[in-house]
Amino acid sequence: MKAYEALERRFQRLNALREAAGVLQWDMSAMMPPGGAPARSEQLTALDLTCHEWLSDPAVADLLGEAEQGAEKLDPWRRANLREMRRTWRHETALEARLVEALAKTQHRCEMAWREARPASDFAAVLPRFAELLKLVREAADAKAAAFGCSPYDALLDEYEPGGSSARIDAIFGDLAEFLPGFLPQALARQAAAPAPVAPPGPFPVAEQEALARRLMAGVGFDFSHGRLDTSLHPFCGGVPDDVRITTRYDEADFTSALMGVLHETGHAMYERGLPAEWRLQPVGAAAGMAAHESQSLLVEMQACRGVEFVSYLAPLAREAFGGDGPAWEAENLLRLANRVEPGFIRVDADEVTYPAHIILRTRLEKAMIAGDLDPKVLPGAWNDEMDRLLGIRPPDDRLGCLQDIHWYDGAWGYFPTYTLGAMAAAQVFAAARDAVPEIPEAIGRGDFAPLMAWLRENVHSKGALYTTDDLLKQATGKPLDPKVFEAHLTARYLG
Amino acid sequence: MKAYEALERRFQRLNALREAAGVLQWDMSAMMPPGGAPARSEQLTALDLTCHEWLSDPAVADLLGEAEQGAEKLDPWRRANLREMRRTWRHETALEARLVEALAKTQHRCEMAWREARPASDFAAVLPRFAELLKLVREAADAKAAAFGCSPYDALLDEYEPGGSSARIDAIFGDLAEFLPGFLPQALARQAAAPAPVAPPGPFPVAEQEALARRLMAGVGFDFSHGRLDTSLHPFCGGVPDDVRITTRYDEADFTSALMGVLHETGHAMYERGLPAEWRLQPVGAAAGMAAHESQSLLVEMQACRGVEFVSYLAPLAREAFGGDGPAWEAENLLRLANRVEPGFIRVDADEVTYPAHIILRTRLEKAMIAGDLDPKVLPGAWNDEMDRLLGIRPPDDRLGCLQDIHWYDGAWGYFPTYTLGAMAAAQVFAAARDAVPEIPEAIGRGDFAPLMAWLRENVHSKGALYTTDDLLKQATGKPLDPKVFEAHLTARYLG
Repeated sequence: MKAYEALERRFQRLNALREAAGVLQWDMSAMMPPGGAPARSEQLTALDLTCHEWLSDPAVADLLGEAEQGAEKLDPWRRANLREMRRTWRHETALEARLVEALAKTQHRCEMAWREARPASDFAAVLPRFAELLKLVREAADAKAAAFGCSPYDALLDEYEPGGSSARIDAIFGDLAEFLPGFLPQALARQAAAPAPVAPPGPFPVAEQEALARRLMAGVGFDFSHGRLDTSLHPFCGGVPDDVRITTRYDEADFTSALMGVLHETGHAMYERGLPAEWRLQPVGAAAGMAAHESQSLLVEMQACRGVEFVSYLAPLAREAFGGDGPAWEAENLLRLANRVEPGFIRVDADEVTYPAHIILRTRLEKAMIAGDLDPKVLPGAWNDEMDRLLGIRPPDDRLGCLQDIHWYDGAWGYFPTYTLGAMAAAQVFAAARDAVPEIPEAIGRGDFAPLMAWLRENVHSKGALYTTDDLLKQATGKPLDPKVFEAHLTARYLG
Repeated sequence: MKAYEALERRFQRLNALREAAGVLQWDMSAMMPPGGAPARSEQLTALDLTCHEWLSDPAVADLLGEAEQGAEKLDPWRRANLREMRRTWRHETALEARLVEALAKTQHRCEMAWREARPASDFAAVLPRFAELLKLVREAADAKAAAFGCSPYDALLDEYEPGGSSARIDAIFGDLAEFLPGFLPQALARQAAAPAPVAPPGPFPVAEQEALARRLMAGVGFDFSHGRLDTSLHPFCGGVPDDVRITTRYDEADFTSALMGVLHETGHAMYERGLPAEWRLQPVGAAAGMAAHESQSLLVEMQACRGVEFVSYLAPLAREAFGGDGPAWEAENLLRLANRVEPGFIRVDADEVTYPAHIILRTRLEKAMIAGDLDPKVLPGAWNDEMDRLLGIRPPDDRLGCLQDIHWYDGAWGYFPTYTLGAMAAAQVFAAARDAVPEIPEAIGRGDFAPLMAWLRENVHSKGALYTTDDLLKQATGKPLDPKVFEAHLTARYLG
């Protein structure tokens, strides 16, 4: 027990430093002027190296070994905490300090280059940094693969989806890949038979969009004394559980993009806020993984907020917020817009039927790049070919193609699959919540998310990293991740 | 040389972590929702302790000793850098880790309590935290005094004004204390003989105040690609040299308060930005001290921006910004307003004739508290008595009395004297700049600060911490700090 307690004290300090880095990363994306980038990179690299040295101290390895020998005497939370400590330690100590430093600095430089390359649609401008970063990421993947005894790609995946593996993902995605090609034309045909939706005419001033977004956030349960809403180039949820910072980007021609984005990030924020307070700064107090995280954002956005109940609640609010008038503002029209299926170039704007194709594309390409089978030089063409194959459309430029997402450029490799795992988990968790608490849909129709959030808090959020994603789903929904539930949801919503 | 080089590498990491803390502190004051306070305190405490452990490593003491033995072979910058490393080391290692942690956590708690107590004018609400903090600050002062061989108050002072001492400050303040009581009635009589200034009628919307402030900041030379302007309860200049963050607070009834505050903080920001880029993250690359820092803010605000040239430039801009009209907007009237002498309760709003009294009050009280001669319980009464004695006015409540400043409540003791040292240095440096570059006033009359900033950058900013404040002044103005120059400035402006 003494060894375990010493580890808790050490990890509290370590995670406080990682939280500090989290706030600095939020600031980098939401607040920092461009000239601050080199100094920020120094700060974040110093924090990364400090954490690396803390974990690489031989005393930590000794304490882990000692604590694990007495693990059966620990309660389930402490046992899971110890498991997560070991996982953190394995990821960190698989890399040499030199590589940690090079990765940090190259990530920051590559992200800054991407920020300029994306609006200019200039892949060549970011390529040198990108190729340098990929080389380091592959080096890290190889080092972790050797340490963990798995494939390099699985080693990367494990950082975002603990215990996740290509084999399991391939099986799940394979199921979807069988289902979707037949389903998409049916959904499109069904849609074509209904009246075409009409986009409400803009412009929609940013101030009004933001005011409406804040009102809806509050309805979902976001507590502004423990969080913020700001703007950034790539929307995200950052900060720390007691101070969650979400961001969005506004389009004055279309208010739904920012609004649905805000609701999505609010789902992430609710998960963070609901993590077990008694385990703050301990590894088991964190989210179960990024698939579980994405399940919470997509549950709020896709399952709840694009459903008929919420859209009926939203329609008069939106009409009032923007001074709208006429049939474009009717709930039925807005619902058709919110669930419009249409192959498009941009992942974050994709509907839930075509979204998996965006993920399958990225997963294939990143696996190939990590395996060394795809030279980053030819990424734009490979991307466009794959898009053509999967959705029958070809991006006219790289802004709408391989430059659209921040992930690879800021060093997140092995992250993309968690989006679609999350989409499937969202359907499964939402179905279980409605089964358990039948008044959830009606309450959402009044803008009241309290019954839904109470159930999620008890069955998902408060569990932290006590379980793996599959065990969390088993406990909350009665079974591990099952693509059939997601397919049933699609069938009900788009063919029902 | 090897030992010195190893120290440079270590201090680079240390200062990157301190910069990280600086950005988090800015965020705490300008962005953080109140519920984030406990988590932020954990983050900042973890950073403080990490820095403390880094410096307390016996290897650092060994390297310092070794490098100092070869110091005469180092060039002046490296020698000064080594001197500042030793100073940093002495301050940090004088305290035990336990005290570093207790100070950090108590400061954060006390600051948060102050944020609520100040608007409510409720000193009793902050007193328990404040007394606890004072106890720890005294413990730290005693530990440093023992280590440095000086008085506890001088030990605190040295953190903000390297090499500063009560004896020198008492002599300088004594000179002022002889001059001001005779000068103030003369200035008030002279003022009474002139037409009474008229305040331009408000309200002044925040958006317009901010737009004008940004325009004037740019005129002074503030580069928004390397900095930000935001709002906070207590205006300050934070961030890091390549990403300087200044804040203000707006009063819709009076635009001059925020505007002059912004110009003041811009002076601080220009100093930070002008620090020697080749010494970033090294101790010698920082400001010479807080008196030098304050000299730069007061030079911009008090010397330049309240002078006839700048106010004449400002008048039509302000009139236009707020749609003003009539005699209140004439330059002559605004100049009388900008230089209005009037004993008041609030330090940051004080004119430069009565400002030193605010500082003398705080210096007396903090010396007495550090010496254990003044119980914090009776601070409000002691404050009000002293105010009555020095300026003949008595605060009606503690919001206008001992709760007005953040400093003591966030742990900054021994800081206040630097404000008046800075005011005197500002007069001396501005006089030297005008002597060297006669076109400075005329350029300021066109809103062009480039000639002034070029001289300041060369003679002050770029020197970093190469010199002490007095040596910096000798080099830039030909003599150490001389109260007579400040007194001559007051005489010229208020009796001239």
